[in-house]
Amino acid sequence: MSQHLNVDPLEELSKQLENDHLGPLWETLGEMVTKEPTHSMKPYLWKWQTIRQHLLKSGELLTVGRKAERRVVYLQNPSLKDKVGFATETLYAGIQLLLPGEVAPSHRHSQGAIRFVIEGDGAFTTVNGEKTYMEEGDLVLTPAWTWHDHGHEGTEPMIWMDGLDVGMVKNLCGSFFELFDEETYPVKGIPDGTISRFAGVGVRPIADRKGKDGYPSPLINYKWDNVKKALEELSQLEPDPFDGYAVDYINPTNGQSADARIGCTMQMLSPGMHTQGHRHVHSVIYHVKKGSGYTVINGEKYEWSTGDFFVIPPWHWHEHGNTGEEEAFLFSINDRPVMEMVGLEMEEVYEKNNGFQEVERIFQP
Amino acid sequence: MSQHLNVDPLEELSKQLENDHLGPLWETLGEMVTKEPTHSMKPYLWKWQTIRQHLLKSGELLTVGRKAERRVVYLQNPSLKDKVGFATETLYAGIQLLLPGEVAPSHRHSQGAIRFVIEGDGAFTTVNGEKTYMEEGDLVLTPAWTWHDHGHEGTEPMIWMDGLDVGMVKNLCGSFFELFDEETYPVKGIPDGTISRFAGVGVRPIADRKGKDGYPSPLINYKWDNVKKALEELSQLEPDPFDGYAVDYINPTNGQSADARIGCTMQMLSPGMHTQGHRHVHSVIYHVKKGSGYTVINGEKYEWSTGDFFVIPPWHWHEHGNTGEEEAFLFSINDRPVMEMVGLEMEEVYEKNNGFQEVERIFQP
Amino acid sequence: MSQHLNVDPLEELSKQLENDHLGPLWETLGEMVTKEPTHSMKPYLWKWQTIRQHLLKSGELLTVGRKAERRVVYLQNPSLKDKVGFATETLYAGIQLLLPGEVAPSHRHSQGAIRFVIEGDGAFTTVNGEKTYMEEGDLVLTPAWTWHDHGHEGTEPMIWMDGLDVGMVKNLCGSFFELFDEETYPVKGIPDGTISRFAGVGVRPIADRKGKDGYPSPLINYKWDNVKKALEELSQLEPDPFDGYAVDYINPTNGQSADARIGCTMQMLSPGMHTQGHRHVHSVIYHVKKGSGYTVINGEKYEWSTGDFFVIPPWHWHEHGNTGEEEAFLFSINDRPVMEMVGLEMEEVYEKNNGFQEVERIFQP
Amino acid sequence: MSQHLNVDPLEELSKQLENDHLGPLWETLGEMVTKEPTHSMKPYLWKWQTIRQHLLKSGELLTVGRKAERRVVYLQNPSLKDKVGFATETLYAGIQLLLPGEVAPSHRHSQGAIRFVIEGDGAFTTVNGEKTYMEEGDLVLTPAWTWHDHGHEGTEPMIWMDGLDVGMVKNLCGSFFELFDEETYPVKGIPDGTISRFAGVGVRPIADRKGKDGYPSPLINYKWDNVKKALEELSQLEPDPFDGYAVDYINPTNGQSADARIGCTMQMLSPGMHTQGHRHVHSVIYHVKKGSGYTVINGEKYEWSTGDFFVIPPWHWHEHGNTGEEEAFLFSINDRPVMEMVGLEMEEVYEKNNGFQEVERIFQP
Ligand SMILES: [Fe+2]
Ligand SMILES: [Fe+2]
Ligand SMILES: [Fe+2]
Ligand SMILES: [Fe+2]
Ligand SMILES: [Fe+2]
Ligand SMILES: [Fe+2]
Ligand SMILES: [Fe+2]
Ligand SMILES: [Fe+2]
Repeated sequence: MSQHLNVDPLEELSKQLENDHLGPLWETLGEMVTKEPTHSMKPYLWKWQTIRQHLLKSGELLTVGRKAERRVVYLQNPSLKDKVGFATETLYAGIQLLLPGEVAPSHRHSQGAIRFVIEGDGAFTTVNGEKTYMEEGDLVLTPAWTWHDHGHEGTEPMIWMDGLDVGMVKNLCGSFFELFDEETYPVKGIPDGTISRFAGVGVRPIADRKGKDGYPSPLINYKWDNVKKALEELSQLEPDPFDGYAVDYINPTNGQSADARIGCTMQMLSPGMHTQGHRHVHSVIYHVKKGSGYTVINGEKYEWSTGDFFVIPPWHWHEHGNTGEEEAFLFSINDRPVMEMVGLEMEEVYEKNNGFQEVERIFQP
Repeated sequence: MSQHLNVDPLEELSKQLENDHLGPLWETLGEMVTKEPTHSMKPYLWKWQTIRQHLLKSGELLTVGRKAERRVVYLQNPSLKDKVGFATETLYAGIQLLLPGEVAPSHRHSQGAIRFVIEGDGAFTTVNGEKTYMEEGDLVLTPAWTWHDHGHEGTEPMIWMDGLDVGMVKNLCGSFFELFDEETYPVKGIPDGTISRFAGVGVRPIADRKGKDGYPSPLINYKWDNVKKALEELSQLEPDPFDGYAVDYINPTNGQSADARIGCTMQMLSPGMHTQGHRHVHSVIYHVKKGSGYTVINGEKYEWSTGDFFVIPPWHWHEHGNTGEEEAFLFSINDRPVMEMVGLEMEEVYEKNNGFQEVERIFQP
Repeated sequence: MSQHLNVDPLEELSKQLENDHLGPLWETLGEMVTKEPTHSMKPYLWKWQTIRQHLLKSGELLTVGRKAERRVVYLQNPSLKDKVGFATETLYAGIQLLLPGEVAPSHRHSQGAIRFVIEGDGAFTTVNGEKTYMEEGDLVLTPAWTWHDHGHEGTEPMIWMDGLDVGMVKNLCGSFFELFDEETYPVKGIPDGTISRFAGVGVRPIADRKGKDGYPSPLINYKWDNVKKALEELSQLEPDPFDGYAVDYINPTNGQSADARIGCTMQMLSPGMHTQGHRHVHSVIYHVKKGSGYTVINGEKYEWSTGDFFVIPPWHWHEHGNTGEEEAFLFSINDRPVMEMVGLEMEEVYEKNNGFQEVERIFQP
Repeated sequence: MSQHLNVDPLEELSKQLENDHLGPLWETLGEMVTKEPTHSMKPYLWKWQTIRQHLLKSGELLTVGRKAERRVVYLQNPSLKDKVGFATETLYAGIQLLLPGEVAPSHRHSQGAIRFVIEGDGAFTTVNGEKTYMEEGDLVLTPAWTWHDHGHEGTEPMIWMDGLDVGMVKNLCGSFFELFDEETYPVKGIPDGTISRFAGVGVRPIADRKGKDGYPSPLINYKWDNVKKALEELSQLEPDPFDGYAVDYINPTNGQSADARIGCTMQMLSPGMHTQGHRHVHSVIYHVKKGSGYTVINGEKYEWSTGDFFVIPPWHWHEHGNTGEEEAFLFSINDRPVMEMVGLEMEEVYEKNNGFQEVERIFQP
């Protein structure tokens, strides 16, 4: 009887609700609808030498083919360790090794994918039969649900970054995958026709007048020389306060993101440049194309040099510094296109302390 | 020494990778990129009497105000019990009770929200100061990031369904929330002006020529009489094979979903109607506006009657049957608008067995 | 020799240029690029009794069929008399008579066309085989390049207004025309299915999810009762300062103009209402659905009563007054959709004299 | 009395209609709604030496300034001689001469304008204060309603083509024009910043993320080297059957026409190339950037060489031949963007005689 006296009737109700697979919003509203984004993702940084060494080892142990479709070592964010392949809540990055003569067979999936070439040349990608050779610094697209395979006609190992929106598609329960009947998709047209069709700024083949929806992008290889030159020219103007000199890769048919869902960006930081802090809803995976410096993320300093990867979670303050003698180049992928489509992107500028966070910790992998 | 003999070098590599927060794609590709959508969400059905009884109890125990912003009992899908408020991976449904004289104070959030009125009248919603009264069967919008409050000028308890894209926003890490400085947002214009502005099919006030992007929707209350009439008229034509007579609620400014991210649909099933099975990526929360029947989901039969709620997970076969003597009306919300924006929607028709699944089980709550 | 002294060398150059089919911009820039729109179109007003009497006469003299495809008396703006069928520089209006049992045979053309029913019932229109009956006050669409024919199952003469963008298509050199092989296009589905599919405000059949580009509009008959009710409801709100209570007819698929190029608008002026003057690039053909009043156009007063037609040229000040005892209804078509697509629409409010022009003349036909 | 016997009552009615500013559609339908486009425009070709000689003469006689805003000799199509400045029914082309030190003062107009540089360098254009230098072969935009002026810091006369949609805007009654208060608009940022911002294919400065509607285009100078290289690369692929190797100039923000209403195209014809005939609704003004050859238009041969201008009317068969030893380059402007916006574009392939018209006449200017 005294027992009854102690029972809070609201608690009692909550228990009954739980029993019936219902819940009391008055207790949990703050968990569902938070003042600012909440998630369990934390920043992390992976050193290139660690990745590369494991990758080369896998090259000795594994053969690429229908049994192991791709030889890839991927980033597993330790704060998301229960979610296989999550570098951020939406994005995946893998580092792929293809040896001379190997074929990564043809398949397609609803995940979008981009490739950023880290080392080597002589390998190629085909997208629905369009073949393009990959060279260091190139961005190659294999848009969602397009058939794609890779081959290698060169003589040295070839290493590139794969970026896919694994988490995004997982969260939205939209994953589909198919193997192509043959090992490779029949090649159409001449190799690198995609590059020949888009060799000038601000012009487009008239053949492109039809098929205006722009999917998949008719341009599938964004050459490094071209992007580098664009950034050098851009550096004659004022830098962006948060990103230095920076360009987005775009689909020339519609001016939107090159990959419809995965934003791709290349930044150039001048020697000594230190950008102002800001934060935004979209998350980012960074790969250091070249150079050395650091990024401060929510008060912790992540020091990077050529080849490293690091990730910035949603709504985390961040700012970049170049400590090298030369320009630093940071390639990155993000989920900004989706955030903007669905109307969830927000941005805030770090105003305190002249825009620079106080560094409280230095990250150690 | 014998130990070394037993170690598979690939396993050894995998361990080292794990240690360095990396992963071997050759082991896990199938987990990340699945042939079909995988997720842990299962169907479920909640009986109206259970919900209603708990809700009325909460009405006795709890006062609405700044301490308990909303008096709501929400669906907690048992298959997603670690995710507070998830009815599906993307959508939330709550059942809200407002008593005469109460005020659910003004706030805004990046989650979109819709209200579907279940019982009563006399309560109202304001959206950025636009005031509209709620009657049984009405759909009322409070679009993402608009200020909204509810009040009650009537004499009887008022019950409605809240639909929010809690899971969607959570997965995309985009939740923002703000309280309004005052309890209620100042009312602008006359009550139900939104209805007066949109009282004819296919016509729109010329004031609406400007501000074409259509956000937020200028129409915020979709009256039940109007929707019912639309369905009755529609029933003179061929029914949709999968959904019977069905309409989507749309934003008259752009012809797109009434809420930009949450699809809203009303279906009418004639007596005896049994629709053909299909499945799609988008998931659905159903509320039985009126009638009795069943829905077969992946071979399990969910029997429903007036007021019940049930959920259909992504890529699950489903078909509907009306076993009552009269038309059945099913209201539902879904994440189809987002799936289409991001290009992940797919649909498949159930072809076997003349389109009807074999019923293997009957669901018991 | 003296001759040479008199010749202005610039004049001499101009003559030589003319000879070579060239021109001197320094003389003519002001003609090509004018400070404000210039054109030769003037306002005009046609009395209904004049039109009707001629039209009925034509009914006695002429039979509709492949020899005379349509029995129509059209407005010929006297200021544009060299341009056959021009009521404005872009728009045409005809008044069509169809007698019981007659068939206006099937054809299609690149001109868009709308019908507004003035008298009678029992006639129908088919659009690509979709059949709809026409009643007084209805707006019926036969979008550009759709097959259309009219028939008459009633017992009394039927009169309606035809609106086409004859001048627009002529100016853009885009006229195409084809006769259908048969007299009538085979009817598909049930009559007035288009109305049954769109019988509710803000809802749309789910069948309409596909085929999103919205051309041609799935809704082809906008019933008068519906529009009238919309205007009555709208009159509970503030009127538009320039147009009173006014709605645009829209395509429910995309929220844009019902006819993609021809804007259609219905205005209601309360007894005694006198709107403020403004002017805009788009031109307008007005038909007085019901009532009596006047429109002041660039200082001249055009008095109208039920059935009359009048036209407002581009960039002409205009304001409307209702002098009757009841609501006046003005139906109008305009070229605003095209002006907005191409970015040429401009608007200016008449600020002087409290927004009312001084009336300098009263128009006499 | 005998008089009465002779009168055809339909003729009588027609006369009465004419008297009342009405018309009988049964007589004139075929004039308004034609089977194919009808217009009075004919092809024409202007020799470069004629134009250039007159233009240089005007340079001796006329000073540029507020009295003569621009020193331009324009094409006056003899078939449209009553329409000042019409080269086609929609488009204008002028050839402008600016001498060292001169300033063509700042103004803006609702006509869109493009510049294609024919001779010289050292002159510049500013667009809303953005300054860019003009070199041979460059395409420079001054979009509709943007402030623009030209100056000349070089030492030699500068000649360029102006392309405006004079006829389009005239036909649509949408001409507006304003002088800027000062002679020149204040320059913002560094010269040629527009080029530095868009120096790479398929990439765009992140500053461009905002302001997505793309008007006016952020890229206002399309350098010749860049376009030439694009065409050379394109020539590794199959030529377009009707246009050889051809690119459209596009706005990188949205992938649409560089000027929103005036299409701009550059074609390269290999030595000996002879394209297949076709016709389309859009009309074209051609300028021979370089080379010699001919264009057959509706059976008449128009022979051209470097610098010449010629025009192709709507819906006229045409095919091109290069008779020179080197690549020929044809620059052209057209009204295709508008035709596509409004839905009037059509195209037909010339199928007879293997796609080549029989030449019946050779044009003599
Ligand atoms: Fe793949
Ligand atoms: Fe950032
Ligand atoms: Fe809320
Ligand atoms: Fe379904
Ligand atoms: Fe017609
Ligand atoms: Fe007006
Ligand atoms: Fe100009
Ligand atoms: Fe052509």
